[in-house]
Amino acid sequence: MRILLALALWSSVLLRASAEESVPAPGNVAGAEYPRIGSDLSVTFRFKAPEAGKVQLRGGTGLVKDTLDFTRGENGVWTLTTPPAVPGFHYYWFVVDGVNVNDPASYSYFGWGRECGGIDVPEAGADFHAIREVPHGAVRAHWYPSKVTGKWRRAHVYTPPDYDKSPATSYPVLYLQHGAGENERSWVEQGRAGFILDNLIAAEKASPMILVADTGYAAFANAPAGTNRSAATAAFEDVMLRELIPGIDAHFRTKTGREHRAMAGLSMGSGQTLNITLRHLDQFAWIGAMSGPPRQGFDAATAYDGVFRDATAFNQRVKLLWLGAGTAEEQIHASTLAMHEALDRAGIQNVFYSSPGTDHEWQTWRRSLHDFAPRLFRD
Amino acid sequence: MRILLALALWSSVLLRASAEESVPAPGNVAGAEYPRIGSDLSVTFRFKAPEAGKVQLRGGTGLVKDTLDFTRGENGVWTLTTPPAVPGFHYYWFVVDGVNVNDPASYSYFGWGRECGGIDVPEAGADFHAIREVPHGAVRAHWYPSKVTGKWRRAHVYTPPDYDKSPATSYPVLYLQHGAGENERSWVEQGRAGFILDNLIAAEKASPMILVADTGYAAFANAPAGTNRSAATAAFEDVMLRELIPGIDAHFRTKTGREHRAMAGLSMGSGQTLNITLRHLDQFAWIGAMSGPPRQGFDAATAYDGVFRDATAFNQRVKLLWLGAGTAEEQIHASTLAMHEALDRAGIQNVFYSSPGTDHEWQTWRRSLHDFAPRLFRD
Repeated sequence: MRILLALALWSSVLLRASAEESVPAPGNVAGAEYPRIGSDLSVTFRFKAPEAGKVQLRGGTGLVKDTLDFTRGENGVWTLTTPPAVPGFHYYWFVVDGVNVNDPASYSYFGWGRECGGIDVPEAGADFHAIREVPHGAVRAHWYPSKVTGKWRRAHVYTPPDYDKSPATSYPVLYLQHGAGENERSWVEQGRAGFILDNLIAAEKASPMILVADTGYAAFANAPAGTNRSAATAAFEDVMLRELIPGIDAHFRTKTGREHRAMAGLSMGSGQTLNITLRHLDQFAWIGAMSGPPRQGFDAATAYDGVFRDATAFNQRVKLLWLGAGTAEEQIHASTLAMHEALDRAGIQNVFYSSPGTDHEWQTWRRSLHDFAPRLFRD
Repeated sequence: MRILLALALWSSVLLRASAEESVPAPGNVAGAEYPRIGSDLSVTFRFKAPEAGKVQLRGGTGLVKDTLDFTRGENGVWTLTTPPAVPGFHYYWFVVDGVNVNDPASYSYFGWGRECGGIDVPEAGADFHAIREVPHGAVRAHWYPSKVTGKWRRAHVYTPPDYDKSPATSYPVLYLQHGAGENERSWVEQGRAGFILDNLIAAEKASPMILVADTGYAAFANAPAGTNRSAATAAFEDVMLRELIPGIDAHFRTKTGREHRAMAGLSMGSGQTLNITLRHLDQFAWIGAMSGPPRQGFDAATAYDGVFRDATAFNQRVKLLWLGAGTAEEQIHASTLAMHEALDRAGIQNVFYSSPGTDHEWQTWRRSLHDFAPRLFRD
């Protein structure tokens, strides 16, 4: 009993301490005091719902494992303090009597096939994805009509800091894909890809490059309504090879040709990257697979139409085959490592990157880009 | 009784007809069948909330006056068909037992100081804001450090279609501001400003120009926390004149000087436009006030430090003073018209534009831009 009392007192001291030292989350909508991030990286949420019977928190695993319950306070204001969170960006939302509700204090981020709230928990000492006083590139919307899908599509295109000032210079291109339920904004907003490249380029750690983030969803124009998950991405390869790449090469000052073209993606985008690049090595020489398929049963002799069978030819042709995952996404980390080891055994040159402590979430992919991009477009 | 029965039958026929001829709203998240827009421009919403006691619709006046109640159906699916809506973009959200909930079928649009759902109801024959097969400019994010506010700020910058191809050409600039509760994305997303300019430029109805949409919210760096509404915008003039304009002139190929610089805004942004431009005519020669203050008591002799007192001097100096409002925003339309008439009486050259049937909503402002932009940067 005395121990329980001591624990309770200690907990309340801890809670007070972290509350006292907490600050509004950096991305909050102007003026919002909550959510607040404590010095121990716990996050305190607050939500007014006087008529609600139950309020819960759901979101990314680095913030909330499964579900946490809010406590009802005065005036129908519900509060919740999470355990210390893993640094990085986490989707989150409230479940109010069974209905998903976004925190009005958060901007929206497209994930899980819908707009979600998001919170960015800072990582001590990590400013590789921060906006800093270095020359900035620009991220622009690139709209293009797609005959393959019968729709207008929007990609986001990052041009490096000197793009406008050097009209005679052309640049290599990295095509970078999001994961399932996300879209062409995700690498820019959640991933902070532009700031990561700005910082790497300013430090002369990465070559100036153009980055293209399109949506990986693309259904054929004649696909029946109510498309299933597979049909929703079936046309992406055609879009990319026949429309996106030629359009980018036409509208931007790109270096064309496989040696100046990279493709990478995360999760679903990793699967798309491997499927497209390994079957079109005439188009790509640099390949990055982040937290992605194939999840099991990788066989270097048969995978991807046998592209790994002739290691010497592959190694001569492919400048970079990069694999990576976070240690907290244990199954994916294990299967990615297994693929890396199988490739090593087959004599295929490849790089394996491991992100410490991060799960199937954006901090893994920010770090992945930060590791991957400096390796690109080098001799 | 027979009349009631006939009415009921007729209503059900009408409902069936509009349901049969309805289509998913053009901006729905991929695969979402609802909301649907009927051929009569009624909108049918659908939302699953089995535990809810009450579900209501709220949003822009052209979609829903005040509040509409959903009807509970099987399996906790609630439905609602609105009366025919006014064409254009409308914010909307559901109120589920007193809690604001965004429709997961909608992308988010920042308005009302938070992320809201949005639906774009088509206007027959109006494609001036549609994406069309014409040369497109690009909208890019422009991040800049602000000493005035002590924060990084993001503006969106539209460059015209030939910007990249004509590195020796420089362009005039329109600074365009959103309304209260919105931000730097609003003119691009809700307003479709880029597509409006693309279409006008392709038709040679407007001069190629750069458009800058920043957020009008700017608090001084030393402002106390918990800033009030006035403090939240207090620093905007300083930001604009000392940081935004010099930064745009440094980063983009602009024609500098007042004769190549316009400013316009809607609602709160209209107030900011009049306050800034009329007190800094050394900086601006083209002015647009959309649906904005001053709402009453305009006196041409004393307004804006007496800038209208010398009509001849004003008319020589100011190339365009444009006022506009929608007929359905009756009070604002009346006060804007009163200002226009007072200016006429004072001999001040000005243009008054009236948007038929639209309220204090985005269709008014899309049309306003479509009327305003062709008048800019002409001799």
